[in-house]
Amino acid sequence: MTVLTDRHGTEKYSADGHHAEREAIDAGLREAAARLPGPAAQIAAYHFGWTDRDGRPVDANSGKALRPLLTLLAAKAVAGDWRQAVPAAVAVEMIHNFSLIHDDIIDRDGVRRHRPTAWKVYGVNDAILVGDALHALAFEVVAEAGGEKATLGTGLLAQTVRALIEGQLADTRFEDRERVDLAECEAMSEAKTASLMGCATALGALFGGGSREQVDALQGFGFRLGLAFQHVDDLLGIWGDPAVTGKAVYSDLRNRKKSLPVTAALGSGHRDADELARLYRAETQLDETALRRAADLVEACGGRIASQQAAAALTEAAANRLAAEPFHDEAVAELTALAASTVGRVR
Amino acid sequence: MTVLTDRHGTEKYSADGHHAEREAIDAGLREAAARLPGPAAQIAAYHFGWTDRDGRPVDANSGKALRPLLTLLAAKAVAGDWRQAVPAAVAVEMIHNFSLIHDDIIDRDGVRRHRPTAWKVYGVNDAILVGDALHALAFEVVAEAGGEKATLGTGLLAQTVRALIEGQLADTRFEDRERVDLAECEAMSEAKTASLMGCATALGALFGGGSREQVDALQGFGFRLGLAFQHVDDLLGIWGDPAVTGKAVYSDLRNRKKSLPVTAALGSGHRDADELARLYRAETQLDETALRRAADLVEACGGRIASQQAAAALTEAAANRLAAEPFHDEAVAELTALAASTVGRVR
Repeated sequence: MTVLTDRHGTEKYSADGHHAEREAIDAGLREAAARLPGPAAQIAAYHFGWTDRDGRPVDANSGKALRPLLTLLAAKAVAGDWRQAVPAAVAVEMIHNFSLIHDDIIDRDGVRRHRPTAWKVYGVNDAILVGDALHALAFEVVAEAGGEKATLGTGLLAQTVRALIEGQLADTRFEDRERVDLAECEAMSEAKTASLMGCATALGALFGGGSREQVDALQGFGFRLGLAFQHVDDLLGIWGDPAVTGKAVYSDLRNRKKSLPVTAALGSGHRDADELARLYRAETQLDETALRRAADLVEACGGRIASQQAAAALTEAAANRLAAEPFHDEAVAELTALAASTVGRVR
Repeated sequence: MTVLTDRHGTEKYSADGHHAEREAIDAGLREAAARLPGPAAQIAAYHFGWTDRDGRPVDANSGKALRPLLTLLAAKAVAGDWRQAVPAAVAVEMIHNFSLIHDDIIDRDGVRRHRPTAWKVYGVNDAILVGDALHALAFEVVAEAGGEKATLGTGLLAQTVRALIEGQLADTRFEDRERVDLAECEAMSEAKTASLMGCATALGALFGGGSREQVDALQGFGFRLGLAFQHVDDLLGIWGDPAVTGKAVYSDLRNRKKSLPVTAALGSGHRDADELARLYRAETQLDETALRRAADLVEACGGRIASQQAAAALTEAAANRLAAEPFHDEAVAELTALAASTVGRVR
């Protein structure tokens, strides 16, 4: 399978097509965002890459839309009409973007998708409010679908937001701690990333009319894929090509992030782990030589291979969850291909 | 009717009793907040006045709980079991407090209910996340109730959050504008305050099993009462006793807030309006003499009497909405008394 990249070099996972699904997601997002009060609608449109900072239409990079696509493929997998699941897909993407906007404020991240972040352009106050607006909008869109899927969906969405917040609280606290266990780091990644991907596939199954068992199996698929995705993201945060990731080279090491491969390396007991810990404790900024050295130490301590293996094992475990229940074959193939291309971002 | 004050001098509207309702609200809030991840639960407990900053139980001022009480009385008014409406009351109070926590960050307000605000104690980042957590929790609690009331309630709650955000966006923009029409200021107050009080009573009616017409009438009651409440709050922001309001004397004038009475005064065409406008444009802080002069000018331009009359007229209009549908007499009397005591805070 080929993986296409857009003009920013960001992978779009679009080799498999999914054109109709992507268009429906885009239309649903734009329709929902249009309900926001004027200034919030403008900021949301900028954040989603639909307009420039002055509100002029542009064709910027709106992100991978991985989560809403998972939602629609999950609806297909239960042999449902994926169009029924568009509100769920829109809600998941709204929650994802609400959390990105607030996390960028919290982490003081100034760049996302190769553009200045919302708070950088419009200020912290407006960015807080736009995040809040997208958060509420997600619940509104799900509630409008009506029936039991709306109440179950709302509950799942709310629990997922709680997990996201738990993960973000843990993440900010890790920065101030010298020592973080790999188990803690995995729990944080599960809360911050895996929970929303599990929610994406569960909601798709729910809105597609799947059985309780199918919803559970697809949630399990999304959750495992989400954790694999985080391992890959953390590998890219060290060894990723800045032209592709949109981040500086060695960005996670520069920020002393206790990511999965770094945590594995620090806890490895390898003789080089102490040197890595010293670099992470250094009071001054790390220069290019020190950053390269830190990356080499993570690799020497087995952090790189550990995350590569974990990502591969989790992707396989995710696929196995789909074998446990009867699903629509073509959709299973699409989900598996999407999982492979997600994890295949890293060598 | 007597109005009791707690040991901080804040009115509690508790003369009418409602002890069972208040206890159920308190228990519901504590039960829901206990689901939050550790650090978020601690910050929420501090914000609600249940603990001090170190997590030790205290009996601080948790606020008036006016909105959730309105919810339960609305459920009674449709002859429903008010206990059925406790989740709705909890959700409304969660939304109110989420918006307080975020607004305090945005407005840089350092004191609320006579205590340092959440962001002052725990930092902006954690306060953003705790607000987000309470926001999601409100939807979770409503969704758990299940059935049509849950989906309708979620939708109404989400639309209300959108209105709150619209109001807050307008409010922050008013500060930078020299001229604000009274109509704009009223629209902002409707969005920021009236919408949530209308939502509180509507949800109560919905969860109490009221008809569509009853829900609408009670929403109309709450909305009008909410706008009356804002007029009163704005009067207290100028002439309120600091010992009662918990704010500095003339606090809204000090902050050059374009509140309802000030906006009415500035747009009155009275010969003193220009002097008031000059004081509001002054580049230096206003001293006590200037603040007293500004307050006198608002009064001379008719701003004080305008808000007093508006509050009285809106309270009457609110009560009239209850006459339009068949309601439980005793609950109507309780709602009317609560409305009177709310507006009666100001002389």
